[in-house]
This record gives sequence, C-alpha cells and structure tokens, in this order.
Amino acid sequence: MDMIIEPYTRSVYYYETDRMGVVHHSNYIRWMEESRVDFLKKAGIPYDEIEASGYMIPVLGVSCKYRHSLNYGDEFVIMPEFDDYNGFKFNITYEIYNKNTKVLCASATSSHCFTDANMKPVRLIKANPELHQKFLSSMDIKYNFKK
Amino acid sequence: MDMIIEPYTRSVYYYETDRMGVVHHSNYIRWMEESRVDFLKKAGIPYDEIEASGYMIPVLGVSCKYRHSLNYGDEFVIMPEFDDYNGFKFNITYEIYNKNTKVLCASATSSHCFTDANMKPVRLIKANPELHQKFLSSMDIKYNFKK
Amino acid sequence: MDMIIEPYTRSVYYYETDRMGVVHHSNYIRWMEESRVDFLKKAGIPYDEIEASGYMIPVLGVSCKYRHSLNYGDEFVIMPEFDDYNGFKFNITYEIYNKNTKVLCASATSSHCFTDANMKPVRLIKANPELHQKFLSSMDIKYNFKK
Amino acid sequence: MDMIIEPYTRSVYYYETDRMGVVHHSNYIRWMEESRVDFLKKAGIPYDEIEASGYMIPVLGVSCKYRHSLNYGDEFVIMPEFDDYNGFKFNITYEIYNKNTKVLCASATSSHCFTDANMKPVRLIKANPELHQKFLSSMDIKYNFKK
Repeated sequence: MDMIIEPYTRSVYYYETDRMGVVHHSNYIRWMEESRVDFLKKAGIPYDEIEASGYMIPVLGVSCKYRHSLNYGDEFVIMPEFDDYNGFKFNITYEIYNKNTKVLCASATSSHCFTDANMKPVRLIKANPELHQKFLSSMDIKYNFKK
Repeated sequence: MDMIIEPYTRSVYYYETDRMGVVHHSNYIRWMEESRVDFLKKAGIPYDEIEASGYMIPVLGVSCKYRHSLNYGDEFVIMPEFDDYNGFKFNITYEIYNKNTKVLCASATSSHCFTDANMKPVRLIKANPELHQKFLSSMDIKYNFKK
Repeated sequence: MDMIIEPYTRSVYYYETDRMGVVHHSNYIRWMEESRVDFLKKAGIPYDEIEASGYMIPVLGVSCKYRHSLNYGDEFVIMPEFDDYNGFKFNITYEIYNKNTKVLCASATSSHCFTDANMKPVRLIKANPELHQKFLSSMDIKYNFKK
Repeated sequence: MDMIIEPYTRSVYYYETDRMGVVHHSNYIRWMEESRVDFLKKAGIPYDEIEASGYMIPVLGVSCKYRHSLNYGDEFVIMPEFDDYNGFKFNITYEIYNKNTKVLCASATSSHCFTDANMKPVRLIKANPELHQKFLSSMDIKYNFKK
C-alpha cells in the first residue's frame, strides 16, 4: 500500500528576492535541499540521523529549469520524487508549484551518492541493508496534492 | 584579433561552507552569476548598464556537475564562455578550477534570454543592434589561464 | 483583551550551517526578518500589503547577542516584540530559543522607520492613520510559549 | 613603525540585492566576516591557519547601523579595526564606505573570543603566546584610504 505525504510548502522570504523583484534563481537550489530533507523526514529516514549513522549524501549535480517566477508573498509547493535508486546512487526530480495559482514554476533534478564521514563513496546496499531498504521503500511515496 | 582576459577569481568565504566542511553546492550557482557579470564587464557591456538601458537577462535554466569539492581557504577560478548566441537566447558554459591545484572542481551551464523591464522577451538583434553586436563579439574572448 | 499568537518556529536548514558545524551567525539576522514578517501577518498587517500600499519598512540597525549555538536538526522559536512605536520609528526585540531544550540561543533587536516607495521617510501617524492604528495595537500581542 | 594595508574592497553581487532594489541588510554581516578574514590575512595570521592550529574565533555578538544603502554596481570599502584585545576577548569595529562617493554607508561592530576545536573558550595569551603576540601587533595596523 502506498504511503501518502504532504508536499513541502512554505512562503518566499523577503531576503530571497533580488532587484528584479522576484526570487533569485539560486534559491531554488536551496529549496530543493529543504524539500528533500523534508521528504526524508516524512519517509522515516531523517537526514540528521543518516549523518549520525556515519553517512553523508553529497550532491553530485543539479539542474533546474525556471518556467514562471515566484514573488515575495507567494507560497510554493515542492514535490521531490526519489528515482533510479540502485543502492549506490540515485536521482531526485522536483516540481515546484505556486501554491495559490497551481502554476508549475520550476522543474529540477539532483543526483546523489552515499559517502562515509570522510567523503569516500559507499555502497549502501552492502554497508547498511536496513537503511538501504528504507530508501527503496521511499520510491513509492505519493503526494497529497491536486495539480 | 582575439581579446584575451583574466578569468574570474576569488577566495571561498567562510559563510559559503557548510557542516560537511566544504562549500555548499548552492553557492556555485551564485558564483556562476558573479563570473558572468565579471565577464560582461571585461567584455565592455557591464550588466548595470544593460539594466539601465532597459534590458534584463534572466536565467532560464542552470545545471552544474560537482567534481571535486572546494574548501575554506581555497581560491577558485571561473571561465564563463558565451555560446549559441542568436540575438535572442544564449548559453554560457563555466569551468570552475581550484586555482592552486588546477583541478577542475565543477562544470556548469546556464541559459538566458533578453527581456525588457517588464520581463517581456526581447529580440536584442532587432531591439538594440549595437548591444547585439557587442554580445556577438564577446563570443570570441579567450582566457589567460593555463590549465 | 490581549491577542495571543503562536511564536515563529521552523527547523534549521542544512545550508544555514558552516564548517564550524553550527548555524552561521549571519542567518540569525535573516531569521529576525522571517519572524517579524510572520508577526505582521499574524497581527493582520501582512508586509506584502504594506508594500502594496506604497510603504516600506527598511532596517535602520540590527544587533544580536549569540548565547548558545543552534545545530542542524534543531528547531528554533522566535518571539519578536514591537516596542517604542511612535508613529514614525520603532524597535523590535527578539528572543530566539531552541524549541526542544528551551535554551535562549540569541537576543536581538532591530530598529525601523517607514518610507514611501522612493525610500523617503514617512510619518505613518499622519500618512495613514488606519495602518498606524494597527501598528499601535500590535504592541499588545502576547505569545503562547512557555519558557 | 606602523604597518599600512589596503582596505577590503569589492563590488556588490546581484544576488545580494533584494526587491527594495538595494543590498539586503543581512549581507553587511557577511561582509564584516569577509573583511576581518582579509584583515587577518594581511596581518600575517590567516584564519585557515588559526583553525589549523586548533583555534576558532566565534562571533559573540554583532551590531550594525545602516546609514546609506548600497546598490548593485556599487563598490564598497571596509576597514575593520581590532580593538580591546586582552588575550581572551576582543572587538572589531567596521566602517563601510561607498568606494566611489566616499559616503559612509554603515558602521558596525562584532565581538569575539577564542575557543579550541570543541568550542571551549581559550585564553590565547596563555595557550599560544606567539599567536597572542601577532594579535597584539595587529591593533596598530593603519589603512591606506582617504576618507
């Protein structure tokens, strides 16, 4: 049976805007991190516990397409989806919506691996089968959001 | 005859690091902006003058591959290259090096268009042929940097 | 009768930490802004509406004393209190607590005035008596938080 | 004989502006850090070496008065001065000028102590007399800047 969670949502902060009057594009990369941390917490594998277990999940790459700008006062919704997980590497795709208008404002991806505390790559599937299983299960999580 | 310029270079700020001990990945997106603004200045088309002329150059998309981390105390070098300019849209590719070790730390791209002050797309080739010509010329700029 | 509101609360973001392992001190200044915007919304005078009415509330000064560090994974609570409002200028004091341990992590103040859209100072008491009255009333707001 | 150094100077980054059209006030706190790190380097006690020796210099408090705003395209100059050093704690005062107009844009202070790598306070005067001596000497540094 699928687990259903609320998407990540919050309002734009004033300091996230720039003199163009809209959110500076670099902040979307930070929001991606906020939303995947939120996802991991809701999936039962909070990132601070992952780090406490001796693992880190660095970002190998990011990409983001900006479709419609977000403004101060807007609320946004992010739905990260974990993808292509093979016990070693994985990708996350993100859709960022304006909560009020339901307009898709940005589509993004990030790619990740697992490392130990010294930043050496780790095959989670071997190193920590229990944590591996939790990541596997998180692939099936669905969102409570009507596009 | 090709114009030869110095690449963009500066040191990592302390507040750009995170608890992993290295530069947070989101800052590379900001450095890309710093380096393209620096490039435009060296190319004779400073961005504040572009804005003062009534044009903006929003970011349509970014992507970045992180290869080697940068640490506090490191100096980095960025060489943005303007590409695929057609008087309407263009891309910029970026190579980010550790200045001391000459290691390639990240490769990135950003895509852009021109808009007026109300963020409506503008064909620069028609709207401002003089500025268009300067962008065209900037494609040929080379860097004074030994990889 | 006093209005009672919930304090501003959220978790520390990963990108807000630095290589010391704790939250970078500059972020507290941003949190102060987040919390006063939240306060204004709860007080019935949302900041985006204030700006839409043609007023801005720039920051004239800030100060912050750091008492105990906050870490990734911590939740914090901020209780801004509006003070010394005279229809022209005002101060806000902030107490920032670790939500879980109830330890006071920082004490801060910011000072503000009102300006028009061109950043010229405005006496709100004369320029907009209705908005002035709302600011006056906000002085009496209390928090639902047990120290 | 007094040591004379160049003040810290750089241009405003686009992402440091906000929708008010000027530099967001929180960035001045980050610039203070940039300038004190620059000062320490010029004084012969680079901060990365201080950290490598096992010491940290956390920020105990900051305050900043904003006098005139800085805009995108502006260059600023910062002259941190080390003060009240007693081998245990010290203060730094900062004057932030618009490089072109010579207008004083902000005045600020930060207060600091020394800690070991576990963030326990350290009396540098006892723990590392050589480093202590360098800090003492840095009090006499003057700037090459005409106000």
